[in-house]
Formats: sequence, C-alpha cells, structure tokens
Amino acid sequence: MRVIGIDPGLRNLGWGVIDVMGARIAHVANGICRTESGGAELAQRLASLHAQLTEVFLAHVPETAAVEHTFVNKDAVATLKLGQARGIALLVPAQFGLVVGEYAPNAVKKTVVGVGHAAKVQVDHMVRLHLPGVQIAGADAADALAIAICHAHHVQSASRLRDALRRAAG
Amino acid sequence: MRVIGIDPGLRNLGWGVIDVMGARIAHVANGICRTESGGAELAQRLASLHAQLTEVFLAHVPETAAVEHTFVNKDAVATLKLGQARGIALLVPAQFGLVVGEYAPNAVKKTVVGVGHAAKVQVDHMVRLHLPGVQIAGADAADALAIAICHAHHVQSASRLRDALRRAAG
Repeated sequence: MRVIGIDPGLRNLGWGVIDVMGARIAHVANGICRTESGGAELAQRLASLHAQLTEVFLAHVPETAAVEHTFVNKDAVATLKLGQARGIALLVPAQFGLVVGEYAPNAVKKTVVGVGHAAKVQVDHMVRLHLPGVQIAGADAADALAIAICHAHHVQSASRLRDALRRAAG
Repeated sequence: MRVIGIDPGLRNLGWGVIDVMGARIAHVANGICRTESGGAELAQRLASLHAQLTEVFLAHVPETAAVEHTFVNKDAVATLKLGQARGIALLVPAQFGLVVGEYAPNAVKKTVVGVGHAAKVQVDHMVRLHLPGVQIAGADAADALAIAICHAHHVQSASRLRDALRRAAG
C-alpha cells in the first residue's frame, strides 16, 4: 500500500510518500511545495500549490492519503489562510479518487512517538528512526512523513480488526 | 466585460455573472453550488465544489472574477471550514488565468447600497433594483451578484483613472 501524508500550509506544504508491506515501511519520496509570499496574489499561489501537488500525485501514484487536521487559534486571519491551503491539500487526493484520512496533531504524535504531547523535535527524530538514511526536505516534509506513518498504522489496525471479526464470524 | 462574483461557502457557494458595457450592467446567470453535509466527507465535498464551479466558468466564460473576503470570528472551526471553501473559490478563476479581486463585505455594501454597514436585506434589494426582473437563486447568489457589481465598479473606476492620467500625460 502506498500512502501519502500532507502537512498543509500556504508558504510550505510538506508531503511524504511511503510504501507499507505488512509491518515494514519504506520511504518513497518527500518534499515541500512552496509558494512565495512576495509578488503573486493569493489565488495564483493556491493555483501553484494545486499544480505542484498534482505533479507529486502523478509522479508517485499514492493509493491512500492523509492530511493533518490542525486548528490554528492564533487569529482568524492565520486560520483562514491555513484553511485555504488545506482546501487544496484535501482537493487534490479527492480529484484522484482517494479517500482522505484526517488526523489531529496529537493523534499523529501519539502514533509516531507514543505520547500525544511530544515536542516537534521528537516527532522528527522518530521519523528518521523509522526511515533510516532518508534525506528529509525540511520540517514540513518530516511532519508529512509522520502523518503518512500514522495513517498506515490506522489503516492496518482497521484491516486487522476486520480480519479478526471475519475469522470470529466464520 | 464579463464579471463573475463568488460568495464562498462549503454548503452553499453563491455565484453571479454580469456583463458590463460602460455604465450599463446586464445579468447573465446566477446560481448556488451546493454540497451536502450528511454522507460525503470533506475532501469529496471540496472536489464537488471545484467541479461545479469549473462547470460555471466553462458555461459562462467570465473575463474577471471577485471573491468576498470574509473573516468569520465565530470560532476557529467555522473559520477553517470557510477557508477551505474559499481556497476552491480562489483556485478555479486562477486556473482559468484570471486575476481575482477580493473585497471585504463592507466594501461590497458601500458600493452597492452606499453605506458600509447596510443590512443583508438592503443589499438584496439593491441587487434586484440593479438587475430588474432577474430570478435570483437565493441569498448567496444575491451576495455573489453584489460582489460582481462591486468589482465591475472598481475595475471601471481604475480604468477611467488610467485614461485620465494618460490624457493628462499626453
């Protein structure tokens, strides 16, 4: 199963693709879609994000996707801005016919580090431990890989549960 | 000049298209792109909004676009939701190569009604006065037509100013 995790943002949108085979995970690719705040207007930046993320999907053909479900409480302007980028992050997988998992930051940390209130640096460390020797494009790409690992874990747990129920019923 | 105004929303996204010839405006079409809250997940709803709005652009071929610049201060969840829908409302015109105007609700009211703190019902009334005999699909479509009228007014004022400056320089 090929999984893409996406950490949405207007300036830096992180993405990470992994392959999952049973209990093993393998890194496929990771990166950051960037848009410049100076110059291009908001609509053009969103169109650029959409085009860049569509390229990633065409290049790596993920079968399932997950996006971080963040709430920025800093202020309404920041939350609206994040929402706009998040709209693109959800749209692209849906346009490829994928169901999109959504995980709160604490759920991602709990899966990857073991505790919900882990520091960002711990998440980064555990991602590097899970995917040794991998070049990571930056903090947003590391977060995206953590989201992909979290999603893989949840999809597999759900599938194991289904199998167990089927065996119990059969 | 053909103008589209868009009032973004996840459940109801209003749109209105007008033609502007000098001081005259003529209604072309208006409507509401809807997505159901029950059933379909968020990513699928955003993909449906994107597909519906793309259809509107293909059918009516606007040359310039404007989107309301709202801040919902109610709560972060509502603001994030609006941001996601607004991301789609900005993306579609940019994908058609259009520059997108953004107007705060008060700027729209000031242009259409004459005062910034007009009630919603007054905006609706003035839109019907500007476009007599037009069937309006609902409140969100009326708001979208108001945004289109506001944008047409601002684009024309800017163009008249450019002409005046050119004459003064020449």
